Amino acid sequence: MATTSNGHEHVTTGEHAYTHAHEHEHEHQQRQAVVRRLKRAEGHVAAVRRMVEEGRGCPDILIQLAAVRAALDATAKIVLADHVQSCLHDAQQNGDTEAAWGDLSKALESFIR
Amino acid sequence: MATTSNGHEHVTTGEHAYTHAHEHEHEHQQRQAVVRRLKRAEGHVAAVRRMVEEGRGCPDILIQLAAVRAALDATAKIVLADHVQSCLHDAQQNGDTEAAWGDLSKALESFIR
Repeated sequence: MATTSNGHEHVTTGEHAYTHAHEHEHEHQQRQAVVRRLKRAEGHVAAVRRMVEEGRGCPDILIQLAAVRAALDATAKIVLADHVQSCLHDAQQNGDTEAAWGDLSKALESFIR
Repeated sequence: MATTSNGHEHVTTGEHAYTHAHEHEHEHQQRQAVVRRLKRAEGHVAAVRRMVEEGRGCPDILIQLAAVRAALDATAKIVLADHVQSCLHDAQQNGDTEAAWGDLSKALESFIR
């Protein structure tokens, strides 16, 4: 554990310690929620795979695939919202809206096709 | 293993033998491909989860979530195409386009919001 200047704790995981300028406390706040959602999505995809192996009907499989997609989209929305918040926080701290916008537009372009 | 009248092998998995009227050879043709794709998607979601745990940047995570979504959509397209083919095959065999359309529209409604 290391404590940053703003008092938030940074959990270091092995060699992936937080050394980047773009790691923010906002991302930390939602991280465990995102990890939990992704674990659920893994289990859901595995369940759909078993349905296919068992010869379940196509409409049932499509309903479940649509549900997984919706769950992943909801997770991406949380990741993006966290990032937007941290970019805004940075802009406020540094007065550098140009850098914040660059950071933000990169994230948006990553996800929205 | 049992062999159907049309010469396609039916692999029975425990109690989930093919006893339904809506199991067609078209679904069998793509089943293994769909299972392989879903296994890859499981691994991909697990990899994204590890990225989040390791504190990787938001744009990288969003790129990977978009890639998983695209892979699941491609898989759903295969499941749907298989189903459309088997519905058309049924309609041709039975001359019952009404039933084939009912079957098909149910599948389409399952996936397309």
